[in-house]
Amino acid sequence: MKIAVDAMGGDYAPEQIVLGSLQAVKKYPCEIILVGDENQIKDILELDSEWKKFPITIRHTTETIEMGEHPADAVRNKKDSSIVVATELVKNGECDAVLSAGSTGAAVAAAQLILRRIHGIGRPAIATPIPTPKGVTLLLDSGANVDCKPEHLVQLGLMGSIYAEHVFGKENPKVGLLNIGEEETKGNEQVKSTYQLFKEMKKINFCGNAEGRDIPNGHFDVVVCDGFVGNVVLKFGEGLARMILKLIKEAVYDGGVSAKVGALLLTPTLKKLGKRLDVSEYGGAPLLGVNGCCIISHGSSDAKSICSAIGASNDYVKSNVLGHIKNALENLN
Amino acid sequence: MKIAVDAMGGDYAPEQIVLGSLQAVKKYPCEIILVGDENQIKDILELDSEWKKFPITIRHTTETIEMGEHPADAVRNKKDSSIVVATELVKNGECDAVLSAGSTGAAVAAAQLILRRIHGIGRPAIATPIPTPKGVTLLLDSGANVDCKPEHLVQLGLMGSIYAEHVFGKENPKVGLLNIGEEETKGNEQVKSTYQLFKEMKKINFCGNAEGRDIPNGHFDVVVCDGFVGNVVLKFGEGLARMILKLIKEAVYDGGVSAKVGALLLTPTLKKLGKRLDVSEYGGAPLLGVNGCCIISHGSSDAKSICSAIGASNDYVKSNVLGHIKNALENLN
Repeated sequence: MKIAVDAMGGDYAPEQIVLGSLQAVKKYPCEIILVGDENQIKDILELDSEWKKFPITIRHTTETIEMGEHPADAVRNKKDSSIVVATELVKNGECDAVLSAGSTGAAVAAAQLILRRIHGIGRPAIATPIPTPKGVTLLLDSGANVDCKPEHLVQLGLMGSIYAEHVFGKENPKVGLLNIGEEETKGNEQVKSTYQLFKEMKKINFCGNAEGRDIPNGHFDVVVCDGFVGNVVLKFGEGLARMILKLIKEAVYDGGVSAKVGALLLTPTLKKLGKRLDVSEYGGAPLLGVNGCCIISHGSSDAKSICSAIGASNDYVKSNVLGHIKNALENLN
Repeated sequence: MKIAVDAMGGDYAPEQIVLGSLQAVKKYPCEIILVGDENQIKDILELDSEWKKFPITIRHTTETIEMGEHPADAVRNKKDSSIVVATELVKNGECDAVLSAGSTGAAVAAAQLILRRIHGIGRPAIATPIPTPKGVTLLLDSGANVDCKPEHLVQLGLMGSIYAEHVFGKENPKVGLLNIGEEETKGNEQVKSTYQLFKEMKKINFCGNAEGRDIPNGHFDVVVCDGFVGNVVLKFGEGLARMILKLIKEAVYDGGVSAKVGALLLTPTLKKLGKRLDVSEYGGAPLLGVNGCCIISHGSSDAKSICSAIGASNDYVKSNVLGHIKNALENLN
């Protein structure tokens, strides 16, 4: 298996991206092509004197798409940007997957314009794994498309269900529709129509409406929403978790000796818990609905996250998610 | 000041509602009319042998609106339900505010049908105070209306700004529009149009797009979104906070002696922090945009929350939020 990694995308690129890729080739049975500025990438690889023993190579590019640029325009104009070249490597069959921690918009645009949507899918979607006490809930779309019609949302349910089954090993995954109440009559016009379409779709285990609280409590394996709601929820959750942590640290700092000793004694337990809830353990979220494996990593990814995301790419390709989605779509009608 | 309290609404009604009202008449300079089943209410009041010394009376009603009922239909048909009668007390001037922890839909429907919308306001909105490290951020609409047009969302910004200024004492409150990115060009059609309308509105301090993470970090005093997104975000936050707490408790339970001792030593510090972040300290969220003060409490409200919510009703009426909103609307054009 061969994975194209956009070495120039991300807050800590290229350093953390290159180091994470180096970790991954040692951990997973895969080859990696690092796409980006050759000199910069080489300098980082040279930190490990043995890097040439591993299946990792460089594809030099001269352009980079910045965060502020219009995604589709940038992808069309910057033919020698790292994300465009990396995506082309999947398109022409040289690689099995592309991974980027750069501009999400650019990665999605590159995938849509170069790999193209799967026939029968109206909107690709980012499927983000959310850690829960029961394992993981897949939230999609978490930001690829902000305007989704009911028929698109139902397709997301199908793709999410297939991913949860084949990658996370969930049997007959429970699919929920994100809404403001459990009852069928709740919600705006978009979700009410989607509910009816879901009821008619026998291929998946549709379990009704999911409320906001059902995402972290893990009552569903897959929760479907449009990319606007999904993105807001995801960023809200990140912000809330960070805020709680910050306030606890401040409270301990301002607290007396016993608070500090208590925090010290609790640290190993909380670290273990933190690891369980750590989003970077999952590393990347697949863009489902395009003809190829495209994994999107968080902008703030460090080497560890990138390594995990390469693991996720591996799982995606190995479990033939794309084939299963195409197969399911062909047998829908 | 006189407040009508729906004694029959809420998961712990009537007991916690009545006990909370009793706490409130002792704490705030207000009179309370408890609306609901007289016998049940009296039995609870009698737990305090001195209750008759306080300005608290009962208005007997025979009907209750259940959670599953269609809100508007129930309000129209159950003329002698506690929420309808309590709202009527505000309409006919007998009370200054109505408070309910029952079905949010029914409380909103009663307010819309009986008190009516303020002239010039297209959609009333629930404005929920979210605790942040900097104090509190007002999130509206957090669930009154799921289909909002851009002109409605801009009105929410105006009302939220007035509430934050006059009730929370914020000077020139920072108003943000909930979106998936900071840039003006981000988002779906609804928020893009809303952004343009906000830019033209000189009456408020519009500070651009707020991302999900900006709600808990307190960068804005007021964050505007439609009731669908607001409700999902609010319930997601509740669920996430509860999940984190539960997992920490489990981790401590499963941890060794040092984890348990650590937790014990940390407890007072965390309790103090918990109090700071406790939503029940705010108790209720005002429904802004109707002709009268209507405060909506969480279904799971206990006596303490109800007491705080009565405090919020007091603040709302005393600071003449309604007058300020009407005044601002008249001077818009």
